[in-house]
Amino acid sequence: MRATKSRRSVPLNTDLPNTEYFLGLDLGGTSIKAVAVTAKGEKLRQRSVPFVDRDMEWARKIRTLVRAWRRELGEPAGIGLSAPGLAAKDARSIAVMPGRLLGLERFEWADYLASPRPIPILNDAHAALLGEVWRGAARGLRDVMLFTLGTGVGGAAMVDGHLLRGAIGRAGHLGHITVDWNGPRDDFNTAGSLEHFMGNKFIRERSKGRFASTHELVAAAVEGDAAAKEIWDRSVRALGCSIGSLINVLDSDAVIIGGGIARAGEALFTPLERYVRHYEWQAGGHQAKILRAELGDHAGAYGSAANALGFNAAKPSRPAKQRAQEL
Amino acid sequence: MRATKSRRSVPLNTDLPNTEYFLGLDLGGTSIKAVAVTAKGEKLRQRSVPFVDRDMEWARKIRTLVRAWRRELGEPAGIGLSAPGLAAKDARSIAVMPGRLLGLERFEWADYLASPRPIPILNDAHAALLGEVWRGAARGLRDVMLFTLGTGVGGAAMVDGHLLRGAIGRAGHLGHITVDWNGPRDDFNTAGSLEHFMGNKFIRERSKGRFASTHELVAAAVEGDAAAKEIWDRSVRALGCSIGSLINVLDSDAVIIGGGIARAGEALFTPLERYVRHYEWQAGGHQAKILRAELGDHAGAYGSAANALGFNAAKPSRPAKQRAQEL
Repeated sequence: MRATKSRRSVPLNTDLPNTEYFLGLDLGGTSIKAVAVTAKGEKLRQRSVPFVDRDMEWARKIRTLVRAWRRELGEPAGIGLSAPGLAAKDARSIAVMPGRLLGLERFEWADYLASPRPIPILNDAHAALLGEVWRGAARGLRDVMLFTLGTGVGGAAMVDGHLLRGAIGRAGHLGHITVDWNGPRDDFNTAGSLEHFMGNKFIRERSKGRFASTHELVAAAVEGDAAAKEIWDRSVRALGCSIGSLINVLDSDAVIIGGGIARAGEALFTPLERYVRHYEWQAGGHQAKILRAELGDHAGAYGSAANALGFNAAKPSRPAKQRAQEL
Repeated sequence: MRATKSRRSVPLNTDLPNTEYFLGLDLGGTSIKAVAVTAKGEKLRQRSVPFVDRDMEWARKIRTLVRAWRRELGEPAGIGLSAPGLAAKDARSIAVMPGRLLGLERFEWADYLASPRPIPILNDAHAALLGEVWRGAARGLRDVMLFTLGTGVGGAAMVDGHLLRGAIGRAGHLGHITVDWNGPRDDFNTAGSLEHFMGNKFIRERSKGRFASTHELVAAAVEGDAAAKEIWDRSVRALGCSIGSLINVLDSDAVIIGGGIARAGEALFTPLERYVRHYEWQAGGHQAKILRAELGDHAGAYGSAANALGFNAAKPSRPAKQRAQEL
């Protein structure tokens, strides 16, 4: 299996002490990703800090990192943060995150980090999409959906330049739509969901115990193993079928594919393109572009920074702050 | 079958000559619906005008109606119009409407009706949802999806108070999502779509020629016919399953059900409630409300008026014009 994940080279500028910058933080399951970027997206710093999910170590590690960058770069013009779970309506915290990252629910970041400004909190997938629209694969686009193919299948959606959040912040759970209503219900009660067909956590079940990971499955399929080819083909077809459905709901210009399984490269993207064309309503000849995520593990951190600086894809040319300065 | 479709009684006010009013027009397949309403939603006039789809008779009938109300009520403060098809990005016309209403594509309404102001054009389902949010079943809500169950299954979606339009104006085609990926592809290339399971146009196929309409099917099911019960149950389950999927994508507070098949009343809503609860991710105990459409055939006309007066559910308390006056 060829690893073809590309990563856009963001210009690194280390010669700008006291430059206005925004700090984007993305709290994952095992590490914290952080970027310090200017309003134009120039990267000043980038870091990945591992942590153990115990006694809120993630909080202390984030505080240490923010303090270090404050010393080096000065007070940021804004801080944004993303994390798993559903963001609260007031965007001050993660409201719902059962099971992991104990202590995260309703944790007030602006207080903890002694920020003079509010720290807007986003769901991690929402942040990743915002990052890709701001500085990654979907720059300049307004109608985009994102799939992250990994242990599960995550997602996010932007329509008319508006990042969908929804009534309780769960919009864009694109892995939890039905592909086969006769299939078993997943953790979200969705029958025969896309996640069931594509998520790494179901690979043993899908392969009757033969494969321990999608990586192994794809490697065997590429080498011509007939059973592996069939299982993988079903996964890709389920994704193509789901994208076809969601284009009718969200009317996207582009579909971004990220996550570990996207590293399958052509073994994923070549058949996926075919299935999307098969299931897509090509109204007036319109075809959604299939794009590879470009910001890798730091997409969420970029999105958090974009959120802090008021980036709004509905008005794509200039961020909100810049517009305000022009008034 | 008991007809239980309710219709909200909108106050009729005929004693207000020269009152500021907005004119909402909805061009359907066989008739034009029109309302004249104040910015607060008080109804001054309501009409339904049939037409034959030949030689653009619909255009002339609309012009005649608008002229009559101009004479009676004065120049409207705004005119809005909705019609089948995909609205153009600039909202000045319907861009795509193949097969029916010949002449509608790119027809410039503001010129034709000699309007001193732009006439914003909406897709008909988008308008119906906007109407229901402004003055109907979903007043005060911001996260809502609408299904219209009829010949086909139409729909529209609002998220965070934003009516989803999308890249080419087709967002919200909720009838064209997959329920059973092994089913046949529909006119939109969607495999085993909700429309296939619920649309009246497939009732003969679904019932192996036994029923000519969903009305007949439901009547037989209510009377205890076992085969009819089974077919109808599959239809309702497909709808419940689809709503479950779409809640994960759109995170709705409420689901509005309208269209002719909604007249089935309890025979639809009782089992539908059960299936939605079965397939719904009830994060934090959240349950989407299932609501019956309230504005009936005139929802689109109300939505067009709401669109003309700048109603914005993202700021639910007051319409844009009123807010502007308060500044």
